Amino acid sequence: MNPRAQRSDEPAAQPLRSDAERNRERIIAAARRVFAHDGLHASMASVAREAGVGIATIFRRFPTKEELVAAVFADRMDAYADAVAVALDDPDPWHGFVGYIETACAMQAADYGFADVLTTTFPTAKAMEDRRNEAYEGMVRLISRAKATGRLRADFDPSDLVLIHMANAGVVNATGEAAPDAWRRVVALMIQSLEAPARGTLPPSPAHDALYQAMLRNAPAGVAAPAPGKGG
Amino acid sequence: MNPRAQRSDEPAAQPLRSDAERNRERIIAAARRVFAHDGLHASMASVAREAGVGIATIFRRFPTKEELVAAVFADRMDAYADAVAVALDDPDPWHGFVGYIETACAMQAADYGFADVLTTTFPTAKAMEDRRNEAYEGMVRLISRAKATGRLRADFDPSDLVLIHMANAGVVNATGEAAPDAWRRVVALMIQSLEAPARGTLPPSPAHDALYQAMLRNAPAGVAAPAPGKGG
Repeated sequence: MNPRAQRSDEPAAQPLRSDAERNRERIIAAARRVFAHDGLHASMASVAREAGVGIATIFRRFPTKEELVAAVFADRMDAYADAVAVALDDPDPWHGFVGYIETACAMQAADYGFADVLTTTFPTAKAMEDRRNEAYEGMVRLISRAKATGRLRADFDPSDLVLIHMANAGVVNATGEAAPDAWRRVVALMIQSLEAPARGTLPPSPAHDALYQAMLRNAPAGVAAPAPGKGG
Repeated sequence: MNPRAQRSDEPAAQPLRSDAERNRERIIAAARRVFAHDGLHASMASVAREAGVGIATIFRRFPTKEELVAAVFADRMDAYADAVAVALDDPDPWHGFVGYIETACAMQAADYGFADVLTTTFPTAKAMEDRRNEAYEGMVRLISRAKATGRLRADFDPSDLVLIHMANAGVVNATGEAAPDAWRRVVALMIQSLEAPARGTLPPSPAHDALYQAMLRNAPAGVAAPAPGKGG
């Protein structure tokens, strides 16, 4: 596994002219600030305002919001996949599993945009989805190792991690800067609920396709570019 | 306790003319559908479209979004407070406590708007806040009874119910109709985590004021009426 092999969703192209490259970096930096503060539903117009460029400039560089999201969160997705690799290296699989959940939830708490990224799928952002899938495969190994030690309840399903991230995003988004550590308490409760022996049965996990559809529907409105010619 | 003593946030006024009353009911019914589908952040303009009236008509009847929200969810807040009363009547306090969490979370799942109402405070909607406070006082009794039986962990704090509702809203909003029962699994995990003996310590609860500030900041944008003369 080479975590940084595919860092960008851009095809290898001729080098951008330096002013174009500066524009691109400025847009990404502005989008990072706007998404971190307002989440993925922030509009392309507000990113344009923050960057001090016209909205047409943004759509020339990033024809879809998915592409912008992928560019902004490429390094976060790398860090997320790296956290799985770190957890797999832990000699205590349960400790690694718990540490991974805490790390990934802390990444959500640090960035409202990333909180949404972890519960959303972006089918056209191939490099980002590749990293997510790589992380997912690592998590499946992590889960089966933690179960093998007898510390993780046997009915834990990989999809439960997605549900935990959705729950954590709910707390993070609802408490925000007013109660910035509240999520830690909820995540601690959820982790304790995962410890074997289970204290009860659980309702079934959502079907794989259903959860995928849910992650698709979280894609922010306005993911596609507006009709050409609109905006400045 | 008389659960239905104060059902509306309207001051006692002269009876509305019947066409005005019909308009009011039509707006409330439309807002109920829009909020149920899109959550509280749905715009007053989309409520106006759904109701087939001009936005000025809505703001004449409901000068702030808070007043519209209070009118739409008055019956839900009644049902919510009633659920606490039912739980307090349960001869098994732990069973009553668990049943209450399941009922309240199911109410969130059934209505995206109400999912937000439970984690938001509306300072000017006095009757609604009175009902919430009444429910809160009942929950404090419910919690202390459940602790007295030794089934509920001793470090459970009433504010944890708010955090559970925020987490549940996160799952409900993220999964939606694609995986409409996924929240049940997360809520079951959280309930199992609450059973004594606790499997570990917890990070501290957010301060009361911090959580109140968080619930304030969830109030949807556009809670106040626009400047007079705007809209149709």
